Amino acid sequence: MLIVTNEHIAPLYLEPLLQHLESLDKVETLILPAGEQYKNLASLELIATTLLKKNFGRDTTLIALGGGVIGDLTGFAASCYQRGTDFIQMPTTLLAQVDASVGGKTAINHNLGKNMLGAFYQPRAVLIDIATLNTLPEREFVSGLAEVVKYGAIWDQQFFHWLEAHTQRIIDKDKEALCYLIKKCCEIKAYIVEQDEREHHIRALLNFGHTFAHAIEAQTHYQQYLHGEAVAIGMCMAAQLSAHLDLISFADVERLRTLLKKLQIPLNLRHEASYDEYVTLMQRDKKNSQGSIHFVLLESLGKAKIMKHVPNNLLQQVIKGYT
Amino acid sequence: MLIVTNEHIAPLYLEPLLQHLESLDKVETLILPAGEQYKNLASLELIATTLLKKNFGRDTTLIALGGGVIGDLTGFAASCYQRGTDFIQMPTTLLAQVDASVGGKTAINHNLGKNMLGAFYQPRAVLIDIATLNTLPEREFVSGLAEVVKYGAIWDQQFFHWLEAHTQRIIDKDKEALCYLIKKCCEIKAYIVEQDEREHHIRALLNFGHTFAHAIEAQTHYQQYLHGEAVAIGMCMAAQLSAHLDLISFADVERLRTLLKKLQIPLNLRHEASYDEYVTLMQRDKKNSQGSIHFVLLESLGKAKIMKHVPNNLLQQVIKGYT
Repeated sequence: MLIVTNEHIAPLYLEPLLQHLESLDKVETLILPAGEQYKNLASLELIATTLLKKNFGRDTTLIALGGGVIGDLTGFAASCYQRGTDFIQMPTTLLAQVDASVGGKTAINHNLGKNMLGAFYQPRAVLIDIATLNTLPEREFVSGLAEVVKYGAIWDQQFFHWLEAHTQRIIDKDKEALCYLIKKCCEIKAYIVEQDEREHHIRALLNFGHTFAHAIEAQTHYQQYLHGEAVAIGMCMAAQLSAHLDLISFADVERLRTLLKKLQIPLNLRHEASYDEYVTLMQRDKKNSQGSIHFVLLESLGKAKIMKHVPNNLLQQVIKGYT
Repeated sequence: MLIVTNEHIAPLYLEPLLQHLESLDKVETLILPAGEQYKNLASLELIATTLLKKNFGRDTTLIALGGGVIGDLTGFAASCYQRGTDFIQMPTTLLAQVDASVGGKTAINHNLGKNMLGAFYQPRAVLIDIATLNTLPEREFVSGLAEVVKYGAIWDQQFFHWLEAHTQRIIDKDKEALCYLIKKCCEIKAYIVEQDEREHHIRALLNFGHTFAHAIEAQTHYQQYLHGEAVAIGMCMAAQLSAHLDLISFADVERLRTLLKKLQIPLNLRHEASYDEYVTLMQRDKKNSQGSIHFVLLESLGKAKIMKHVPNNLLQQVIKGYT
């Protein structure tokens, strides 16, 4: 086995993991620098170099110990090392536990776009220990809650209501609440991915808020917003667009904003970008086809759908109006 | 569509291909330098950059116009660009027509090993025009015949006999003979790959000669032998090993050598390498598991099998004895 992790996680959890694997013949470790900027071709090459130097074959198992960056990168490396080895996800962030580690989307970034090189490649197992959330920086924990709200908003009205009723327990990291919530998100995601692994139809709903979020992240070079923070803003924008299209009411938009705020997720834009700058970046979204931008919009708080042709003026209104 | 080709092929076949695609909206071309050394991460990145700059989405089709290098690289790029786009193989070398373009093995090289990063990813179509063989350098044509002989040796005794009976027609590039031979190879390969796409069992037989060949190519930094030339020598070594293990007779080995020679394939080693240098490189073979080198050996001229434990002294005898 090769454990791939980063310099933040290694001091916390590498030793206990290695102890569990003591009985195995050959366990090696690769500790990468932390950060989205290392989810690139150079890190992929470094994983391959490490595996080749240690004579690892196709029968290797890679372990991704860390957040979404480590999981996406390690999963992609597993998908292509010698055309495919096994891998196991051990996500240590809330975001990775509820989203990135489940469903087999793996990727690295390209200078011109996030997750532009990757594979659909399922892990052999996803092992989640919520104890790791105790060492997660608060800002990252809160940002992960955005993806949690997403599942309620696009798929499960009851779960949305449960979140509204338990914001305090969630913020306090009540173990029972966290277990329930993470399990729920994994169940919803697993159900959707089982129906549509390759994102031909319903899997695209999981991108609610992400069309805007990817543009926001690219505009700020992935430096200013955590992924969940950008997704939270993107969800508010997509909800507003849904309201402008009379799919939901503006009261629904407010209800979504209120839940996100109660979970302490910052919703204000902290940079400036023009409508054109959004559109250029949104045109690179992987969901698109035939040059048109596809949006995931809400039909209610608990149900989403894809729209392929959104009037430019409404889109402009949402982007210009958001602060 | 994006056509990926190289500087040798572009002047010959790009224009006619573009004419056929005239009716399409958006056809772009990427012309790479020619050579195995460009089957690397940098070229993969360049393909992605080209696609992103031209705003190509997941609904793109890549066309690989060229030999095995272009096909392997373009296929891998198609497998991972936005987690997978369609691609079409248009192989222009005999080697690519009978082997590389069929079966969905795609890959790029790593400094420490050939084809170490890749994917099993099937093309939508493989379009073969044997007219392209008229512009193929003679040495490359002849080298491609090694893979043709391989199919006879590992799978089809009758085809082996047919090859023995028609060497002159093949060398003369008789159209009918070439069509028969290419079709036969594609049929055999397609049959094997349909049974075992991921190389869990019989697909590994297609690696006959390749365990040695990959070592020979790595020792000479992919400069001195064409792939088929290395495979021809590797097949002779593997046949000798089979004879030392009493699986076939030494007369069978000679019969294989005779056919290869009649097809004008050079069989002598033109570099020196020690037994240890072979073993180190052969240990990196993707077929291996649990650290043991797996060999594809002949049981007869027309039937092969895998052996996982070959006595070191016999292996040493074959390597030291080969000239």
